[in-house]
Amino acid sequence: MVKLDENNRKHYTTTIFKALQKEKMNEFREIFLDLHPSDQVDVFMSLDEHLRKRCYKYLSPAEFAMVFEGIDINDQQRIFEELDEIYSSDMFNNMFTDDVVTFLSILEHQTAEHILNRMEREKAKEIRILLAYTEETAGSIMTKEFVSISATRKASVVIEQLRTEAPDAEIIYYNYVVNEKGQLVGVISLRDLIVAPLNETVDNIMSTRVISVDEDMDQEEVALIIQKYDLLAVPVVSKDNRLLGIVTVDDVIDILEDETTEDFGEISAAKGATDVNLSAFTAAKMRLPWIVALMFLGLITAGVIGSFEETLEKVVILAAFVPMIMDSAGNVGTQSLTVAVRGLALGTVEKDNFWRMIRREFSTGVIIGLASMLAITLIIPIFYQGNWMIALVVGVSILCTLSVSAVTGAVVPLIINRLKLDPAVASGPFITTINDIIGLLIYFSIATSLLDVL
Amino acid sequence: MVKLDENNRKHYTTTIFKALQKEKMNEFREIFLDLHPSDQVDVFMSLDEHLRKRCYKYLSPAEFAMVFEGIDINDQQRIFEELDEIYSSDMFNNMFTDDVVTFLSILEHQTAEHILNRMEREKAKEIRILLAYTEETAGSIMTKEFVSISATRKASVVIEQLRTEAPDAEIIYYNYVVNEKGQLVGVISLRDLIVAPLNETVDNIMSTRVISVDEDMDQEEVALIIQKYDLLAVPVVSKDNRLLGIVTVDDVIDILEDETTEDFGEISAAKGATDVNLSAFTAAKMRLPWIVALMFLGLITAGVIGSFEETLEKVVILAAFVPMIMDSAGNVGTQSLTVAVRGLALGTVEKDNFWRMIRREFSTGVIIGLASMLAITLIIPIFYQGNWMIALVVGVSILCTLSVSAVTGAVVPLIINRLKLDPAVASGPFITTINDIIGLLIYFSIATSLLDVL
Repeated sequence: MVKLDENNRKHYTTTIFKALQKEKMNEFREIFLDLHPSDQVDVFMSLDEHLRKRCYKYLSPAEFAMVFEGIDINDQQRIFEELDEIYSSDMFNNMFTDDVVTFLSILEHQTAEHILNRMEREKAKEIRILLAYTEETAGSIMTKEFVSISATRKASVVIEQLRTEAPDAEIIYYNYVVNEKGQLVGVISLRDLIVAPLNETVDNIMSTRVISVDEDMDQEEVALIIQKYDLLAVPVVSKDNRLLGIVTVDDVIDILEDETTEDFGEISAAKGATDVNLSAFTAAKMRLPWIVALMFLGLITAGVIGSFEETLEKVVILAAFVPMIMDSAGNVGTQSLTVAVRGLALGTVEKDNFWRMIRREFSTGVIIGLASMLAITLIIPIFYQGNWMIALVVGVSILCTLSVSAVTGAVVPLIINRLKLDPAVASGPFITTINDIIGLLIYFSIATSLLDVL
Repeated sequence: MVKLDENNRKHYTTTIFKALQKEKMNEFREIFLDLHPSDQVDVFMSLDEHLRKRCYKYLSPAEFAMVFEGIDINDQQRIFEELDEIYSSDMFNNMFTDDVVTFLSILEHQTAEHILNRMEREKAKEIRILLAYTEETAGSIMTKEFVSISATRKASVVIEQLRTEAPDAEIIYYNYVVNEKGQLVGVISLRDLIVAPLNETVDNIMSTRVISVDEDMDQEEVALIIQKYDLLAVPVVSKDNRLLGIVTVDDVIDILEDETTEDFGEISAAKGATDVNLSAFTAAKMRLPWIVALMFLGLITAGVIGSFEETLEKVVILAAFVPMIMDSAGNVGTQSLTVAVRGLALGTVEKDNFWRMIRREFSTGVIIGLASMLAITLIIPIFYQGNWMIALVVGVSILCTLSVSAVTGAVVPLIINRLKLDPAVASGPFITTINDIIGLLIYFSIATSLLDVL
């Protein structure tokens, strides 16, 4: 199998491209099928519609299934529409169930049903079961292609069974052992099978305490379990412990990546728009609502400043420190937000340490606030003709603001998470705006009360 | 093996705790060793020093090696200092080489040498080789525990070899095939071995084009390759293609997690301080330099506003819109920053699309800017007694500022990445402050030039 890298990518892409253009089917097949499926996807996606259609002619539905599985979900639908019905139903028959489920779940119900009706009955039935699961649960991401073995078999018989069933299973390194009711009773790794005496029965070699996940478990939790226990796959069971499917480590890496991207999106209010391949217009359309909403929220900030217009008219220089106080509050708040979001993602923030975390963030805020107050109170008089009073007002405001904003930054995502609300509200810019308002209220209140001495 | 979850965690922890306190060694061993190593770590880390020391007495160095491997690198050093020398060298002999390397690389050179001198000579030699690699390269994270097989063997013989060597190998699902010079010539999965006829020789079943990585490759690139090709492990080779070691998927998940945490830290200027378990004081110490540095940078912003004091004195209401313009610029900049940082992490931003990305961000900024200008110019007069001129000044400033800040947000991390500079400079708050300064200059310049009509 050839892996494309910086050195040979251009060469391979050009050769495949030329073979397609000159309608040299055999040459195309020879080079293209020699590539890793993941590289096949890269090359395929670089073709125009005309040449893509030639691919469908040159590749069997089973061969193209490997390519289709690797295509980004956003592009799959477009490609699917280029395929004729017979070709695509044959292709779906050759894909892993979990990949078909992921694709069908983005389609309209009617289109999905239409596809299912044309597929092999047994496979369609399995897929219908998986489609019924709530999105982002273990059930919705599991695959049905796994090997389950009976506890009473001998090691040699199981190895023989694997020889037959292996080509269809997504992973055979873990083999799940079930009793006559289909309940999960143990796990035996291929490694254990290999090192075991050939005549030993499975129940003597298997590990009986197998780590499994509930069909309703959130996919992020599933990912954390696979990560924590260094598993290659984890079995999914029903409430009565019947083995339903497996989730594999390669899917988990993608889930962790997606959840991370979501977290990034939240922190920066760019949710759904972090893909660099989006057009400027699409990206703008997704990012714009945030910017405009936050701008309108900024009208409140403007209102706060406006209400202190009198103070400001008397001491115009107060305006100069507005950005500094706002930015400091925003920065501390974003730091706390990151700590909280990361903690939630990595599972290190649990229910029982909610208050501990809040206390810690408050203490952190106070310490940072004290140090910052000291620094700024000493530095301002140097630049502003020894204006100690202004320096003191700014300093005290910084202390109060930073203490509060460290807590706001951490508490908002934690509460959102607890109440299971839309975490978008916990976005960084939103928290920054809240902290701005608090900070400006503190600053101008202090300034106004000390107006006579300023 | 028992897996701890919300329901049984407390029970197990208490039982183990009591067994230790009552010095019931057998009871402790029975329950503790039944736990998954990952849960053993959780329980162990919840003990105080007194009880931890009892653990070292009750567990053999080989048993404790499994626990030590799972402890966070920040805590490992503290625990190590509690162990006596004979116990710890025996423990290191029982750990996977890559885990020993990770631990030794955080110690002072002299301490590391001292440990190596007490270890088994063969293992110490392997570790010394790994330690010599630059940090965060494939060589520095690979493990030496893998099975390599000769191309001329029969499948049945290899399965027999695996029976013997498997317990020592970190992963046996991929077996790397080498020629007489130790050069990597192919790979054969355990799955292929199992489904192959017993008498077939390895070179007839193996895949000859194996995906491998160079010993000097950056660990993040290694992770992306394992992720892209859905591998369980990847072999590391020297310049002349000699097989040196392997990197496994479980390490890769952790690497991706670490790199992501680094990225988060960059975006929020909380680098190294995203761990929720840090004390408030330690967290404050790590976050403070950023806040103070950015606050001093804020003095420039104050200077910009100060230099327009005259304009501000005449039209005090201008101050009210300062936060809104700053925040909008900051928000758009942070969005672009996220897109760029994510693109770099996921490998979707490559050298050749640098300019395409900049152009796209600029277009996005202009579109967002136009829409925002329209919205704000229409809304301000409603709240500010039909003050159309102020509305227009704010609107035009928003358009100019957003167009510029979308580019700043994307260009800074891309340049940093290209010049291989410290990416900390690309932190979100830093970019926000730059955008503030640009935004305020634009706003007050426009306002000053239109002063007569305001």
